[in-house]
Amino acid sequence: MNRRSFLKSSIVGAAAVAVAPTELVFGKSKRKEPQLRISFQEGIAPGKTLAEKFDWMEAHGVTGFEPGGHKLWERVDEYKRLLNGRNIAVSAICAGFEGFILAEDAAVKRSFDESMRRIVAAAGELGSVGVIMVPAFNGQKPCKPHTLETREFLVEELAKLGDYAAEHGTTVILEPLNRREAFYLRQVGDAAAIARDTGSRGVMCMGDFWHMSEEVCDYGALWSGGDYLNHIHIASRGNRVMPGEDGAADDYRKGFRALREMNYRGFVSFECGSKGDREQTVPAALKLIRDQWAG
Amino acid sequence: MNRRSFLKSSIVGAAAVAVAPTELVFGKSKRKEPQLRISFQEGIAPGKTLAEKFDWMEAHGVTGFEPGGHKLWERVDEYKRLLNGRNIAVSAICAGFEGFILAEDAAVKRSFDESMRRIVAAAGELGSVGVIMVPAFNGQKPCKPHTLETREFLVEELAKLGDYAAEHGTTVILEPLNRREAFYLRQVGDAAAIARDTGSRGVMCMGDFWHMSEEVCDYGALWSGGDYLNHIHIASRGNRVMPGEDGAADDYRKGFRALREMNYRGFVSFECGSKGDREQTVPAALKLIRDQWAG
Repeated sequence: MNRRSFLKSSIVGAAAVAVAPTELVFGKSKRKEPQLRISFQEGIAPGKTLAEKFDWMEAHGVTGFEPGGHKLWERVDEYKRLLNGRNIAVSAICAGFEGFILAEDAAVKRSFDESMRRIVAAAGELGSVGVIMVPAFNGQKPCKPHTLETREFLVEELAKLGDYAAEHGTTVILEPLNRREAFYLRQVGDAAAIARDTGSRGVMCMGDFWHMSEEVCDYGALWSGGDYLNHIHIASRGNRVMPGEDGAADDYRKGFRALREMNYRGFVSFECGSKGDREQTVPAALKLIRDQWAG
Repeated sequence: MNRRSFLKSSIVGAAAVAVAPTELVFGKSKRKEPQLRISFQEGIAPGKTLAEKFDWMEAHGVTGFEPGGHKLWERVDEYKRLLNGRNIAVSAICAGFEGFILAEDAAVKRSFDESMRRIVAAAGELGSVGVIMVPAFNGQKPCKPHTLETREFLVEELAKLGDYAAEHGTTVILEPLNRREAFYLRQVGDAAAIARDTGSRGVMCMGDFWHMSEEVCDYGALWSGGDYLNHIHIASRGNRVMPGEDGAADDYRKGFRALREMNYRGFVSFECGSKGDREQTVPAALKLIRDQWAG
């Protein structure tokens, strides 16, 4: 089983309700252009309870849900129950672990290893595409220095973690952030090369249209993710609010063109705030990105 | 004058003999697909003297020459004389400076500043596209640590150097290398982001098909160079010999497709050895890459 077929099968698992599996199994031959699959983090949809939010999402064609990972294992049954019979799948899991993988302090590294593995196992139970992780935020210290030796250490550690994720039917997803948050990993192409070098089919990468201010070219950046790209975050491009709330800056068309051409089958997941009333801004954002995806 | 028009005008300067300026001035409207413009470093063409090499290059449609930068100012008149009346322009200048820009030692940094500026001025006199530089080879120590502060220092120093280059009608070109040679800068997208952040129209970047083993996707990597990409190195992809000498590994088609789509107007310059007799391997390499460029 190669990376691509693993990716496809894990998406089938996560989204069997949303997309007929045969469409994915027969992939490119059956449908040339992949469809835009939209996912929301918990705070995006209007609604007081998660059930209300899911109702809203279903009514607006949002087929993915990206929960935070903090103690995810305690919420697996609740999510399964709430999603039962709905046209919504768990997309990625957003972080939520303790410690960090590049910690100099052995106890902090161990804390990462233990909590991350529990989240990964829960993610597998939920049929999630993968668990998002950042190797080190700027504020996380003491951190291993940014050297070739540290990169080799990271690749070795990720290989073990990726294999564990693959055993659980999911992946770990490296997320590049902007330099103010995480200097260590800033570009999609760098994350993809790390994923490749692990040799583990359970290590993938993602792009975030807001953090991608680190990139010169959206189109090139997403193509640089290659077959390792299995998740996308979206937000407005100036203030990280709803797509459209920053006006003309919120142009995702070149990035979307890359995703369509790459036959990207993952989710585009909202991670952002809102300046205006969500009852207006969220539907407006959905319309904007659907129009831009259509080209 | 924006970056793109500057780039075009600097190419016009460098290659007025090879390409009718009107074709570049009117750019995309006149000709949709850019042509493959091939350049050789000094060691590539058969021939005992530089004049013999230039004869060989002209006879084989090679219109660019990439000299080493070491004491370039002493050779400006010789190159001008030898190239006079020929259909060959100086493409980029390959390094040749002393010291390095990220040196901790002030004397080593000063040595870089002084020698690099002399080379840049000579490059301008020769109508060169730019002078290739690497921020730090792994062996160059003591080197500033790989931190956000060092990146900011690099951007500031490059802005000054780029402005100096622009005044001389040329550029400095950041070259990403593979990790065994230079961990500091390994990917085209990273080099392009540094160039952008300088705000100087005299800072550009390049890709090298051999070093691009650091990239997951040639197509994405070159697109990630965006408008900052103004030079390309080529070699076989396994052993850095003539394109074709590593067999099926020597596939440049995805990268060439990116260059064609980007309307790339710079040179593709040979930087490699040869296993076989150059009288056979160099023409074979030319045929191979011309066939692959044609798609």
